[in-house]
Amino acid sequence: MKRIADSTVRRLSMYLRYLEELSTRGQETASSDELAQLCHTTPAQVRKDLSFFGSFGKRGLGYPVHELTTHLRQILGLEREWNIVIVGAGKIGAALANYRGFGQRGFRVAGVYDNNPEKIGQPWGEAVVQDTAQLETDVRKLDSVIAVLAIPSDDAQAVVDRLVEAGVRAILNFAPAHVTVPSHVTLKSVNMAMELEGLSFALTNNYSDRGAA
Amino acid sequence: MKRIADSTVRRLSMYLRYLEELSTRGQETASSDELAQLCHTTPAQVRKDLSFFGSFGKRGLGYPVHELTTHLRQILGLEREWNIVIVGAGKIGAALANYRGFGQRGFRVAGVYDNNPEKIGQPWGEAVVQDTAQLETDVRKLDSVIAVLAIPSDDAQAVVDRLVEAGVRAILNFAPAHVTVPSHVTLKSVNMAMELEGLSFALTNNYSDRGAA
Repeated sequence: MKRIADSTVRRLSMYLRYLEELSTRGQETASSDELAQLCHTTPAQVRKDLSFFGSFGKRGLGYPVHELTTHLRQILGLEREWNIVIVGAGKIGAALANYRGFGQRGFRVAGVYDNNPEKIGQPWGEAVVQDTAQLETDVRKLDSVIAVLAIPSDDAQAVVDRLVEAGVRAILNFAPAHVTVPSHVTLKSVNMAMELEGLSFALTNNYSDRGAA
Repeated sequence: MKRIADSTVRRLSMYLRYLEELSTRGQETASSDELAQLCHTTPAQVRKDLSFFGSFGKRGLGYPVHELTTHLRQILGLEREWNIVIVGAGKIGAALANYRGFGQRGFRVAGVYDNNPEKIGQPWGEAVVQDTAQLETDVRKLDSVIAVLAIPSDDAQAVVDRLVEAGVRAILNFAPAHVTVPSHVTLKSVNMAMELEGLSFALTNNYSDRGAA
């Protein structure tokens, strides 16, 4: 498959959300104009994004909502269950473990880990906090793992190395630290301060940027 | 100023982080090769990004770390203090209110709001949870406000409308909801499920994507 930009994948996620909404309302087809408006992009961009994956929709008739939804779910890997392993039972970890949107998308919290003895054994949403020492052993038993890092920056690289060694190929990093992974591993970082900087930039340079949502 | 893409602004934030790191270690110049490697991009991209803002660095000598740091901080609007108003005293709100990285960047948590009577009046990091009913009154008294939305989806648009009415021009949205803002307002959304979808996409289509960090 042709290499697809991160921004394209984000738009695919967004299209999927709106198509599901349209589907709930019983709407059977959606035009590229409609999707573009909902996702703050252009109809040409919608057509380009969706054309990556083959031919959808007929000129003048729009995209078939149900078929396109199914296809986007397949493309995004959502036709299966993923085991989410959260490292760090702090506030970000808690927010993530309780995030309602995850279950709906097939992201199952398989385990929460911490090295604080006071936290180990405590209930955590539907899970119980486990000792980080068990991380590798547990992870090796799971298929389709996505690890989420919600620990202090200083520990981030060491935990990433352990996850990679245990076979994890996808990591979502909330630690405000620079971590490196081998090329066969996918790493995404969410840095809250950087998100705010995008806004301070916009305010300082006096322009709005609605499209980035 | 020429319109700058969101992805460029993110890279500027990253360059700033590494330059600060280099500065701490006493390094006085940085090459585009070095910045590119640290930020998982190409030297050409680094030069292109930095050239938006005028001429920096000399061929063969690299960029002056201190001067470039100062300039990036100006560009990103970090030479001043921002008042962060968090709406929603739940787990995401708590994670944000306690996020160490904010203070270091001049993002001051000016207030935390909730409409749950059990939460109002409770201490919250260095703040006390206020009644959401006061939101507009308080916000109008503040300069340089960035609002952070960490509330359930159903309430998101109504609160956004109130913030906009009170003069807020920048909103970071953690509610997994589609919200709209007028064109003079900048909205950024962080959707945890969508971040995970980027990873399930990469795993399903069997390629890694380190550059997106």
